[in-house]
Amino acid sequence: MTAYSIAVIPGDGIGNEVVPEAQRVLEAAARKGGFSFDWTHYDWSCERFAKTGAMMPADGLEQIRTKDAIFLGAVGFPGVPDHVSLWGLLIPIRRGFHQYVNLRPVKLLAGVESPLKGRGPGDIDFYVVRENNEGEYSSIGGRLYEGGADELVMQQSIFTRRGCDRVMRYAFELAKGRKKHVTSATKSNGISHTMPYWDERFAAISKEYPGFTTDQFHIDILTAHFVRNPDWFDVVVASNLFGDILSDLGPAVVGSIGIAPGGNINPEKEYPSMFEPVHGSAPDIAGKGIANPIGQIWSGAMMLRHLGEEAAARAVEDAIEQVLARRDSLTRDLGGKAGTRELTDAIIGALDATAIRQPAA
Amino acid sequence: MTAYSIAVIPGDGIGNEVVPEAQRVLEAAARKGGFSFDWTHYDWSCERFAKTGAMMPADGLEQIRTKDAIFLGAVGFPGVPDHVSLWGLLIPIRRGFHQYVNLRPVKLLAGVESPLKGRGPGDIDFYVVRENNEGEYSSIGGRLYEGGADELVMQQSIFTRRGCDRVMRYAFELAKGRKKHVTSATKSNGISHTMPYWDERFAAISKEYPGFTTDQFHIDILTAHFVRNPDWFDVVVASNLFGDILSDLGPAVVGSIGIAPGGNINPEKEYPSMFEPVHGSAPDIAGKGIANPIGQIWSGAMMLRHLGEEAAARAVEDAIEQVLARRDSLTRDLGGKAGTRELTDAIIGALDATAIRQPAA
Ligand SMILES: CC(C)[C@H](C(=O)O)[C@@H](O)C(=O)O
Ligand SMILES: CC(C)[C@H](C(=O)O)[C@@H](O)C(=O)O
Repeated sequence: MTAYSIAVIPGDGIGNEVVPEAQRVLEAAARKGGFSFDWTHYDWSCERFAKTGAMMPADGLEQIRTKDAIFLGAVGFPGVPDHVSLWGLLIPIRRGFHQYVNLRPVKLLAGVESPLKGRGPGDIDFYVVRENNEGEYSSIGGRLYEGGADELVMQQSIFTRRGCDRVMRYAFELAKGRKKHVTSATKSNGISHTMPYWDERFAAISKEYPGFTTDQFHIDILTAHFVRNPDWFDVVVASNLFGDILSDLGPAVVGSIGIAPGGNINPEKEYPSMFEPVHGSAPDIAGKGIANPIGQIWSGAMMLRHLGEEAAARAVEDAIEQVLARRDSLTRDLGGKAGTRELTDAIIGALDATAIRQPAA
Repeated sequence: MTAYSIAVIPGDGIGNEVVPEAQRVLEAAARKGGFSFDWTHYDWSCERFAKTGAMMPADGLEQIRTKDAIFLGAVGFPGVPDHVSLWGLLIPIRRGFHQYVNLRPVKLLAGVESPLKGRGPGDIDFYVVRENNEGEYSSIGGRLYEGGADELVMQQSIFTRRGCDRVMRYAFELAKGRKKHVTSATKSNGISHTMPYWDERFAAISKEYPGFTTDQFHIDILTAHFVRNPDWFDVVVASNLFGDILSDLGPAVVGSIGIAPGGNINPEKEYPSMFEPVHGSAPDIAGKGIANPIGQIWSGAMMLRHLGEEAAARAVEDAIEQVLARRDSLTRDLGGKAGTRELTDAIIGALDATAIRQPAA
């Protein structure tokens, strides 16, 4: 029996509540699917930072380098500045393990209320593929004339050919099994060096995929189209910053921002990939047992898919969709009365009731 | 009688249709308001670029420096790359004349269909104040290892204290006459030099305005709030790039992207300010007489306000709102059958029917 060794990092706030619940779902999926998990727990978090001055140990990446995947909750706590907690944990893992794809589904599901008029389940179903290692998120920069009236701050964006090409190819490969339609987010009319280069690479990589439909929009009007025409998209590929924006806006448009999942993926599997929900640590509701575990569970399904357990991944996603559509075990954020545990139990119940179809050999 | 001398740059595509129509409305407002316009026409455009290799003459800025304002249509034409047309006209004017504020209203109007459920006229009414001179839009950057596998491109973002402070103060001054609520768009958790600096300046400028409510959101979740909670905002202040995004997304959310106006403002009036609609040159519908002139006319109202003709500005805005609400003279994009000219005539009719109230002396 295959055993997957997973690094579990619940992090802060509700991360500590939703991660163990999602583990229960994954255990149930493993029992049915005939594989198992070997979980190792790490307390890397803002809490740890408060005690020790570091989000994770100096050799943190070494400790988890040989894991099959990383299952992350949420990081962030009042008092620890975000750029400290994130550059001390999330971003080093994303970069250290060449998780150069950040993948987030945007899907309008039955039972979830979209803020848009006239859109129903099935109408909106696309992926945002975000570059996750370089681009606008760079640590290169600094300050001149500090403290004075002439003070100025610079920050470098860096786009490499390797970085652009590999994330774009990932987007095309993903679209291959879908509608073969890839949209590029750009801003080459305003950002005059990096974004024209991004367009150049998109044109070059597009040529490798004849028979695909491609288009590109400047990020300003693209955000408008996410609201006005979300049914236009299949796979949207974007730089680190633009992808960050689109992968929050997309879930907001389908009403799923509290339950959206995400994967930080090293497609070559040379390093472990990391799966984490889009939502944050929500310190305001932490410890009350009311947090919605779906984002974490759905992230677990993405992890199963990455591990090669496609049938189990689909079964978990189906169970989530069934429970959402039934609407009888939802947490407050979705208009229900259930707690974290009851909602998880409902998903496990739905999962147990379905056969896991092994893909044809 | 005060005469305002205006540089008129219709630009490309539908700019050539909507600008003259908007001038008719402004003439009507001037007749009622007891002032006049002295228009000077400039053919600066992609068409000019195609003929002469330059969007505007080398001494273009000198030619219009002493005007009271600039009234711009839209720039852009297939075949001329956007970054050429924009860095050859729009951006040099914005920067050369220190139009450091880009101001765009986001207002849900009667007669305009918002894509959002459950929002009515009056529910959404805020301004996006965008930094318009520096930030992420910089011409500083370049390419290394050109053409090879190691190729990389860099682009510098530059935020100055002067640049941040002045646009933030403008936002607070604007909020003074409104709900005294200013929201800052940031991304200090990811963009680790410039955005923490932006936050620092926002905190410092906020202190100059006691009694104001302030908040800040990272741009990713802020775009989500524009969709989920657009009623939260009063004045949103943002960097050049983030403001660009928010001032397209905002109008999309209220259904006004085709009619939204904008001002590029030098608040000190040391240089002329420039008013232009948010929409582009729409080459696909150019020359057919069907373009919606409201964005241009509304931009004209913003120009009147900037010139000090507040009563006339309001009268034009009221006329626009009346005609939208009546819905009998709308262009196709708004679900009507009228052409550019009929819709303009309807607005002039509504304007003529209203008294222009001179503000109390
Ligand atoms: C055309 C483009 C350069 C411009 C910008 O990004 O500033 C436009 O989107 C705008 O908002 O006026
Ligand atoms: C927390 C923050 C640094 C992070 C990002 O911008 O990458 C988050 O928004 C995300 O999308 O995972």
